[in-house]
Amino acid sequence: MDFFYTHNDIPKKRLRSIIHRLDGYTGRLRAVQKSKTYRVSESPLSLPSDTRLLNNVLRIIRAKTTSRLKYIVVIGIGGSSLGAKAIYHALRGYADALSHNRFPQMFFLDATDPEYLDAFLKFLKISVRHPEEILIHIASKSGTSTEVIVNAEIVLSALKKFPSFMEHVIVTTDAGSPLARTAKEHNIAWIPIPESVGGRFSVFSPVGLIPLATAGIDIRALLRGARSMIRLCLDSSVRSPAAISAATLFHHARAGKAIHDTFFFHTELQYLGDWYRQLLAESIGKEKNRRGKTVHAGITPTTSIGSTDLHSIAQLTLGGPRDKITTFVSTKKHTTHVRVPKKKILSPLPYLHGKSVEEILHAIYTGTIQSYTKHGLPFLEVLLPDISESSLGAFMQWKMIEVMLLGKLMGVDAFDEPNVEDYKEKTRRILSA
Amino acid sequence: MDFFYTHNDIPKKRLRSIIHRLDGYTGRLRAVQKSKTYRVSESPLSLPSDTRLLNNVLRIIRAKTTSRLKYIVVIGIGGSSLGAKAIYHALRGYADALSHNRFPQMFFLDATDPEYLDAFLKFLKISVRHPEEILIHIASKSGTSTEVIVNAEIVLSALKKFPSFMEHVIVTTDAGSPLARTAKEHNIAWIPIPESVGGRFSVFSPVGLIPLATAGIDIRALLRGARSMIRLCLDSSVRSPAAISAATLFHHARAGKAIHDTFFFHTELQYLGDWYRQLLAESIGKEKNRRGKTVHAGITPTTSIGSTDLHSIAQLTLGGPRDKITTFVSTKKHTTHVRVPKKKILSPLPYLHGKSVEEILHAIYTGTIQSYTKHGLPFLEVLLPDISESSLGAFMQWKMIEVMLLGKLMGVDAFDEPNVEDYKEKTRRILSA
Repeated sequence: MDFFYTHNDIPKKRLRSIIHRLDGYTGRLRAVQKSKTYRVSESPLSLPSDTRLLNNVLRIIRAKTTSRLKYIVVIGIGGSSLGAKAIYHALRGYADALSHNRFPQMFFLDATDPEYLDAFLKFLKISVRHPEEILIHIASKSGTSTEVIVNAEIVLSALKKFPSFMEHVIVTTDAGSPLARTAKEHNIAWIPIPESVGGRFSVFSPVGLIPLATAGIDIRALLRGARSMIRLCLDSSVRSPAAISAATLFHHARAGKAIHDTFFFHTELQYLGDWYRQLLAESIGKEKNRRGKTVHAGITPTTSIGSTDLHSIAQLTLGGPRDKITTFVSTKKHTTHVRVPKKKILSPLPYLHGKSVEEILHAIYTGTIQSYTKHGLPFLEVLLPDISESSLGAFMQWKMIEVMLLGKLMGVDAFDEPNVEDYKEKTRRILSA
Repeated sequence: MDFFYTHNDIPKKRLRSIIHRLDGYTGRLRAVQKSKTYRVSESPLSLPSDTRLLNNVLRIIRAKTTSRLKYIVVIGIGGSSLGAKAIYHALRGYADALSHNRFPQMFFLDATDPEYLDAFLKFLKISVRHPEEILIHIASKSGTSTEVIVNAEIVLSALKKFPSFMEHVIVTTDAGSPLARTAKEHNIAWIPIPESVGGRFSVFSPVGLIPLATAGIDIRALLRGARSMIRLCLDSSVRSPAAISAATLFHHARAGKAIHDTFFFHTELQYLGDWYRQLLAESIGKEKNRRGKTVHAGITPTTSIGSTDLHSIAQLTLGGPRDKITTFVSTKKHTTHVRVPKKKILSPLPYLHGKSVEEILHAIYTGTIQSYTKHGLPFLEVLLPDISESSLGAFMQWKMIEVMLLGKLMGVDAFDEPNVEDYKEKTRRILSA
């Protein structure tokens, strides 16, 4: 993974000074990671090297799946779904609608949506002939998310026609949660999330690993990628891409650029944008700082997809308010090499013929970078070696460390989400009235 | 369609005074619409009542489709794809991955993406047995969009094995464009976009109508919905929901709330968010105002989906910077009534049982509204009567008028996009070198 900082638009001295503020905390992260325990909020850093947990995941999957498996249903919302969805979609899911007969396929039920649920129940009825064809993964850290319980009850009820349907369910939740209790009562397979691992930092825990491994995604490579990024970011803060990125975002947010656009030049990475959106929004968006002072801190994440969104949002970015900083994400290597045929059919643009789509995408990317530069817009560039388990693991680990460091710089607790309890409580009160 | 302004957080007198500034321009829009011509930038208002154009669309579709049609491929980007995608997805597409044997299905090729194109070509090879099973709609206003030409040449080349494949192509473009010229040369069916209709205002032109009608969407109802909104918004500015919404966005943008989140409590409306994102971003995001002064005007659109994004972005919205205004969009009537079964399976939350999913979604919505209110966040509420052609037509027409009025208030040209020519030119230079 290559990082380019040439256009970050921050004086070198200022960048160095901000990064040095992170020395102590980087040391703390290193110590947490080396401890391989789960005692503090930063403990998600222990996940990529936790072989015991990996083996538990692999064991439960071996017990619960056969070669007949066709559909994996992930019932979870927010941190219990976005990580698996990002990786699955990047590697496989983007082509699901085009390859109906390649299995297993993964479905995500997050919101409680009447129309989608109805269509999904009809699909289950027609498509699932044998209980071994389906695996239901129910993930909820607290075990009390309304949406998760609603979707789980409805889907399980639809599978009751198979006497053994409970054998094809895996529950991932906190050890002490109400959901863990009912899973045990019903003798359903379940696996705990280490307690200190928060939802948005849980992709390398069973929350992400169970569905991904079930779908045949190489989770060892995913974790290997994450470990390589931990080394790169925690060995020293000076060269850490997480520290540089956090410092850059911090500097610009202070200067009024409080929107961070992640611009993926890869349609397959669309849901990686959604995953990072939660990570940045929930971690940094805080009413109060660590000292209890009301600060309304936060950076608003947005996602763009190249080249689609050049045709929808570029006019605003290039001409509009100077309130944004961009991180471009692109790939060195594509897995396929489709070309515009040499022989023209319609072609009003003769120079395109014979060129590979890769080459054309690259030209659009270069044109965009030149245009941002000309307009004096600050940006970072990240070049993934390829779209693979290991590069996705590295990218996500980079972002999780970035956000921890950014919390430190902004003086906020990157690990809580105090303001959302409120609407949940209000909803609960309405529903239980 | 019901509008609720109770929490727009703008003094009544101020609102009235802003709206009165729009009286003259509202009169102009009314005159343009009544003229039924295509001479000015506001002429897209003539589209919903243009029966000649509607008849042309229906005629070309009758000539080009049979009951064997299975796949409609929309090749377009930005304004040439987002409108049709929004409507198709809201009414049908959301369930495509769950109903493989319901035809016709629509596919959208926008970005030039090697991996997706490769998967798509394999799909074509396996799934299309007869040329009548497929219709290719190539849409590009300028007729020179790199992405559109690349995707069109590749897909057409893959269909060359059918001698009559050119009979299953419709081109929608400006009358004088290079694409219109080559279409005529090859005797391909083509239909012009009225010249003054810009991409982001073109959903009710052949750009949107051709693919939608082909898929069996009721375009007459869509246009009827649009016409009803034109009456509501142009009869007088005082009660016009477009004027009230534009004035509210204008007021808050001036006061530092320059992010507009559209929060759909309907997963099916996801791409309607993308469509509006282009509309607001490109129309209002401007380097210079109408007098040529550098102003860097703009409002950044974001989209949230309920209840999914309550679990990802709500912490930022509720606790973070006071830089946002929200428009909530929900529906009065759902088409299905799935319930949480009375009989519990796992259920750690007994109060959910027996309730309909609709009821639960509504409780989450109410909890969210109460929470926004408690935190003093400004918002508008829109309640669609249902998700149908006519309500989507009304919604989109509302938004197009809103953005025209907003352009007027901000003093910018809502119809051009001068800054994007730059990266396009740079890309072209790289590719033709």
